[in-house]
Amino acid sequence: MRKNRLKELLSAGETAINGWLSVPSSFSAEIVAHCGVDAVTIDMQHGMMGYAQALTMLQAVSTTDATPLARPRSSSAVEVMRLLDAGAYGVICPQVDTADIAREIVAASKYPPRGTRSFGPPRGILYGGADYYAHANEEILVFVIIESRSAVENLDEILAVDGIDGIYIGPNDLSLSFGGGVGCEPDGEIAEIIETIRRKAAQRGLFTGIYCADAQMCQRRIQQGFQLVNTGSDAALLRQACEAATNLARSGRYGSNPA
Amino acid sequence: MRKNRLKELLSAGETAINGWLSVPSSFSAEIVAHCGVDAVTIDMQHGMMGYAQALTMLQAVSTTDATPLARPRSSSAVEVMRLLDAGAYGVICPQVDTADIAREIVAASKYPPRGTRSFGPPRGILYGGADYYAHANEEILVFVIIESRSAVENLDEILAVDGIDGIYIGPNDLSLSFGGGVGCEPDGEIAEIIETIRRKAAQRGLFTGIYCADAQMCQRRIQQGFQLVNTGSDAALLRQACEAATNLARSGRYGSNPA
Amino acid sequence: MRKNRLKELLSAGETAINGWLSVPSSFSAEIVAHCGVDAVTIDMQHGMMGYAQALTMLQAVSTTDATPLARPRSSSAVEVMRLLDAGAYGVICPQVDTADIAREIVAASKYPPRGTRSFGPPRGILYGGADYYAHANEEILVFVIIESRSAVENLDEILAVDGIDGIYIGPNDLSLSFGGGVGCEPDGEIAEIIETIRRKAAQRGLFTGIYCADAQMCQRRIQQGFQLVNTGSDAALLRQACEAATNLARSGRYGSNPA
Amino acid sequence: MRKNRLKELLSAGETAINGWLSVPSSFSAEIVAHCGVDAVTIDMQHGMMGYAQALTMLQAVSTTDATPLARPRSSSAVEVMRLLDAGAYGVICPQVDTADIAREIVAASKYPPRGTRSFGPPRGILYGGADYYAHANEEILVFVIIESRSAVENLDEILAVDGIDGIYIGPNDLSLSFGGGVGCEPDGEIAEIIETIRRKAAQRGLFTGIYCADAQMCQRRIQQGFQLVNTGSDAALLRQACEAATNLARSGRYGSNPA
Amino acid sequence: MRKNRLKELLSAGETAINGWLSVPSSFSAEIVAHCGVDAVTIDMQHGMMGYAQALTMLQAVSTTDATPLARPRSSSAVEVMRLLDAGAYGVICPQVDTADIAREIVAASKYPPRGTRSFGPPRGILYGGADYYAHANEEILVFVIIESRSAVENLDEILAVDGIDGIYIGPNDLSLSFGGGVGCEPDGEIAEIIETIRRKAAQRGLFTGIYCADAQMCQRRIQQGFQLVNTGSDAALLRQACEAATNLARSGRYGSNPA
Amino acid sequence: MRKNRLKELLSAGETAINGWLSVPSSFSAEIVAHCGVDAVTIDMQHGMMGYAQALTMLQAVSTTDATPLARPRSSSAVEVMRLLDAGAYGVICPQVDTADIAREIVAASKYPPRGTRSFGPPRGILYGGADYYAHANEEILVFVIIESRSAVENLDEILAVDGIDGIYIGPNDLSLSFGGGVGCEPDGEIAEIIETIRRKAAQRGLFTGIYCADAQMCQRRIQQGFQLVNTGSDAALLRQACEAATNLARSGRYGSNPA
Repeated sequence: MRKNRLKELLSAGETAINGWLSVPSSFSAEIVAHCGVDAVTIDMQHGMMGYAQALTMLQAVSTTDATPLARPRSSSAVEVMRLLDAGAYGVICPQVDTADIAREIVAASKYPPRGTRSFGPPRGILYGGADYYAHANEEILVFVIIESRSAVENLDEILAVDGIDGIYIGPNDLSLSFGGGVGCEPDGEIAEIIETIRRKAAQRGLFTGIYCADAQMCQRRIQQGFQLVNTGSDAALLRQACEAATNLARSGRYGSNPA
Repeated sequence: MRKNRLKELLSAGETAINGWLSVPSSFSAEIVAHCGVDAVTIDMQHGMMGYAQALTMLQAVSTTDATPLARPRSSSAVEVMRLLDAGAYGVICPQVDTADIAREIVAASKYPPRGTRSFGPPRGILYGGADYYAHANEEILVFVIIESRSAVENLDEILAVDGIDGIYIGPNDLSLSFGGGVGCEPDGEIAEIIETIRRKAAQRGLFTGIYCADAQMCQRRIQQGFQLVNTGSDAALLRQACEAATNLARSGRYGSNPA
Repeated sequence: MRKNRLKELLSAGETAINGWLSVPSSFSAEIVAHCGVDAVTIDMQHGMMGYAQALTMLQAVSTTDATPLARPRSSSAVEVMRLLDAGAYGVICPQVDTADIAREIVAASKYPPRGTRSFGPPRGILYGGADYYAHANEEILVFVIIESRSAVENLDEILAVDGIDGIYIGPNDLSLSFGGGVGCEPDGEIAEIIETIRRKAAQRGLFTGIYCADAQMCQRRIQQGFQLVNTGSDAALLRQACEAATNLARSGRYGSNPA
Repeated sequence: MRKNRLKELLSAGETAINGWLSVPSSFSAEIVAHCGVDAVTIDMQHGMMGYAQALTMLQAVSTTDATPLARPRSSSAVEVMRLLDAGAYGVICPQVDTADIAREIVAASKYPPRGTRSFGPPRGILYGGADYYAHANEEILVFVIIESRSAVENLDEILAVDGIDGIYIGPNDLSLSFGGGVGCEPDGEIAEIIETIRRKAAQRGLFTGIYCADAQMCQRRIQQGFQLVNTGSDAALLRQACEAATNLARSGRYGSNPA
Repeated sequence: MRKNRLKELLSAGETAINGWLSVPSSFSAEIVAHCGVDAVTIDMQHGMMGYAQALTMLQAVSTTDATPLARPRSSSAVEVMRLLDAGAYGVICPQVDTADIAREIVAASKYPPRGTRSFGPPRGILYGGADYYAHANEEILVFVIIESRSAVENLDEILAVDGIDGIYIGPNDLSLSFGGGVGCEPDGEIAEIIETIRRKAAQRGLFTGIYCADAQMCQRRIQQGFQLVNTGSDAALLRQACEAATNLARSGRYGSNPA
Repeated sequence: MRKNRLKELLSAGETAINGWLSVPSSFSAEIVAHCGVDAVTIDMQHGMMGYAQALTMLQAVSTTDATPLARPRSSSAVEVMRLLDAGAYGVICPQVDTADIAREIVAASKYPPRGTRSFGPPRGILYGGADYYAHANEEILVFVIIESRSAVENLDEILAVDGIDGIYIGPNDLSLSFGGGVGCEPDGEIAEIIETIRRKAAQRGLFTGIYCADAQMCQRRIQQGFQLVNTGSDAALLRQACEAATNLARSGRYGSNPA
């Protein structure tokens, strides 16, 4: 089975850069996957794609060395299994507020006897190889997103769930859940909670990731010890780039007397 | 019929900023259309979309005040008519090397007696209004792209074709055609040719547009007197933004000893 | 944030006409949205579209002043959130048989602290505006469909759920649930139940909507005091119009002796 | 090979009702095909579909007994062949202004030695049967649309092209071409021209069809001797039905100020 | 309502061959449906299609006499109802481990009073007929997949659920669940369990189906008494055929000395 | 720029196996590309895909080492350029009956000064690399299909067109054109013509390919000296495999006479 490059990187203690896809297009996915990232995550929870498009986006990412990941629409078994069957090499599962949710995710990600994943990965065996079944339980990465007060309250129990490879912090929702505002880099109490989550996860040997809004934030999170960070989503990057370019082009505009 | 805002702007002597779409997605199209541009061009010649996607992209642009334009796959009557029927309020037609090609474009863009456009604009009447037929010949913008040695040789004859609203210069292909290299801002002889084209078109009262690779180039072209310029394509903007963000995020990377 | 025009209409005591979409096409969606309706509902429960098509249909509706609504596939949090993120300005949620279901819907529709909606509305901020987060809890409309004996039994408790803006009655399923037949305008006991539901909802200050099969039914329902009604679905309207036209055309048919 | 039911009907001197598809959806196509029509035409010239959607629409029509036809984007060989390969049992070819165009259409529609159609009909053999090649030249219907002054001037020569099965008149474009206005039922000189075209075609034993805007027009055209007529397009039928329903529903509106 | 041909076959004691679709394409679906099978199953659980594609695939199957079936993504009410509304004439529901799951499936498949299926089958009435509602409860086939140790433990209770028409055994997952390996034809204890399931189901008058990997396996399963078997999935058949053809073509390869 | 592996193989005198795609699906494309072939051709002429699907199919092929090729809808400049921009590394152009057609193909395939290809390959630079422009003229393969009496008559002139890399013989159409029947392996005069074409092309140093219907035919063609052959199309392989499997499964039918 093809090795999970992202897992190798993270296991070696390296940090890794993740691309984040909200635009439902295999072409923009391929663009992002070619930009030097180590992994690319197709965001089915907040992104604008359906399953058919996610399939073509996973294929587009597979034209590169970037490891294809996906965030399922929700942390239910069926959503996880559908993405793994399509060749995702890891899932970043939203709103994991309890250990039970974490256990359902792990069960859906692992073939028996470790889990209850149903067998039949039509694209998994294309991308992964004919021996996919034998190694998938080891290669596939399972991240749980910690992003609520409940998740924090249940943190130790969640982190103890066998089969989880890492955590991914959702700072926006985490902040909202604790009564804070929107923003990926909250301060004060929530910043401390984020550090606590990271530390506890790291102490258990889990990989630690966190959603970032831009590259500078990535740098700061890496400084804090996070191993897996993502630049802003393709939608955000495009919007910002396009607004900046339009504004800049317009600033040279001088109305009705061109000469 | 809904007025053509871009035509109003250009007729008032204003410069206008154009967005350029290569990514086959109505969502990225909507992002670009919201970024403050005056028009958005769906590029069927070099962009990665088919007709079905172009339709949804025209709809996405129509959620904003930006004027929806399209570059047809080629400057044949059928390609022009298909896009106008779908609600494009203007066409920017590639490789107009002769006056005959320009005449075919105009004929395809105008209902009789001015042209031979076939009647039946299913989405034209939704976007334009029930009186589309009565005003379409006036509202629809026709741009011809001047981008080859042949076009330059036939320039006066092309510019004299009745029904053309403006020219759009394709500097890349123009440069290649004259033996130069790739690049949107050639210098030397080709720069002079570009200025000649612009001046001749302006003297005839035609709107003058030119393909630009980025916002700084837009500013310089506006300084030179061009009225219609475009920031880089969505694909280029996304690629550059993503590469820059990834590189920046990585520069904070410090290998295998996170602390 | 863009104001919710439908909410304004209903709050002003106006009645509103809703279009209903079952055909998976952004073009037919745009046709319906242009027909003078105040809102358009994309029916993910019984309609023939998947998520990717719902996105383009929401965009198509957004080219008009009609307020874009959606009926999720089911009244689960993930289905509600997926549609709101795509720019729906309201959800009409099926099979709300208990107050718990209603609470899950409200939670999924409201950002903390009022609910637990996860943050990240890529198209919501395009359609709604950059300040989407600040106002979404107020602007987004939440309708619960009352359409079963259970729902009627739990009616008071359901109507008391804080955050619901209105009810929508599903007369077909309601009738079936009470042992009646198919039909949008049942009489007898079920007609009385419908009136009871409407009255109780109105007394609580909730908006009252009901599914209608055609325009005459809309009129009668408005007479009964319903504020939000829908003409038949696009599929039904097309089928009826096409059958009628074909039959009429054929009645002039006179067989094998055309002259 | 499956017999061409429409050809059988027309050959028996029957009139036939045609459905007309502009909406790019296999579901609306299936609705129209179920409404009692004898044939259904997918309009690639003015309709909003691309090739991929046309394929699914041909499949949708094939779930019924209605004969699947298509109007190609233009009367070029490639457009004709692409649709026949996808299982269309006839083409209605636009803007056939000269006998040369008619000959190109016939050549593209017939396998050698009668024509030059390239062999390889992947869906033709599914819909038509394994012996498709042996009978396709006989079963496939070729209609040429007469819709311009040029076509009228070249009428005798066009009608004399061997291999044409029938004509279809495009009254809108025909009227525009002769300096008239838009409308499917022009009077005066153009009405006479239409009758002349019909008569000449019928005298040569060709099937005679004409585009109609509604069912009443179909009846009048059948009275005039036309054999193949179509009710309005799906888009027009849906728009009219939806507008009528919305207006009717609203007329019962009494909101806050009923008077 | 159109009769369910598969149900008729099975009720007559005939065996039936099922096609199995994993490739998200209406064209490959039509190919499979034309190959002589009695039914075709669109596999939403492990197949690579989303809902929009499933719709066009159901249409493609409906161009033939093969009965259209679907395996829902999961055995939840919403997944079952979505497929039936789209015209599936039967569902083969995965991972039915308890009688409660079986009851939810039956409830979702039957209109009241037998179940709680919500009314509004837009394509059901096209494929089935205008009297769909009156007969759907009888015509629609409900299969439950037995594929886990839990299901075996709960077998009697599951088989006793009123409204189930048949079982379908998933030998791969069943084997994994009992600690065996991957493979559709396990031996030993699991083979005995499979025979026990079949026998118990048959004794209750249920139809008995089982997933097969190839035609030889179909034959053996029919010999064992199974009534409904499937050849390998389209994806598997294509992969095997393509590999075999490529290898065979290559075996004639003789490198760089063609002479 | 990524090297053209197929060109390297052929230049080294190796034979190469080509896969052939008619099914409009990126998933089936990926299956074929993984089957050991050296190249995969997306057939836009007779295949059932539109441009949008061709894009995702090119991406799917690009997940493997197989070289992505395409047969354009027709041998016009726009069709060739659209496919190269999408990342095809070669075109196999249909119905090249004259040297003029061959010259148009070459012109469309080569940037100035060798040709007139328009610059702007959005996916070409992703698949090929940032230096695409500098090397594309060398790397891109141009095949012309010889498949008519005209082409044979003009053979020497066609083969002499500078810039052609190889020929591909279309035996079906060639046979039809000479009055023969359908079949990929005609005998008699046409077999001699095929050998003449191959020999003349080889003498000029051109690569020689030919369409084959199955693997045995590939072997025989390789024996005859052809370097590039293709197994049957995905559609044909699937159809044959499915028919064979269904028939085989059925031959065991009525088996154990279930009663």
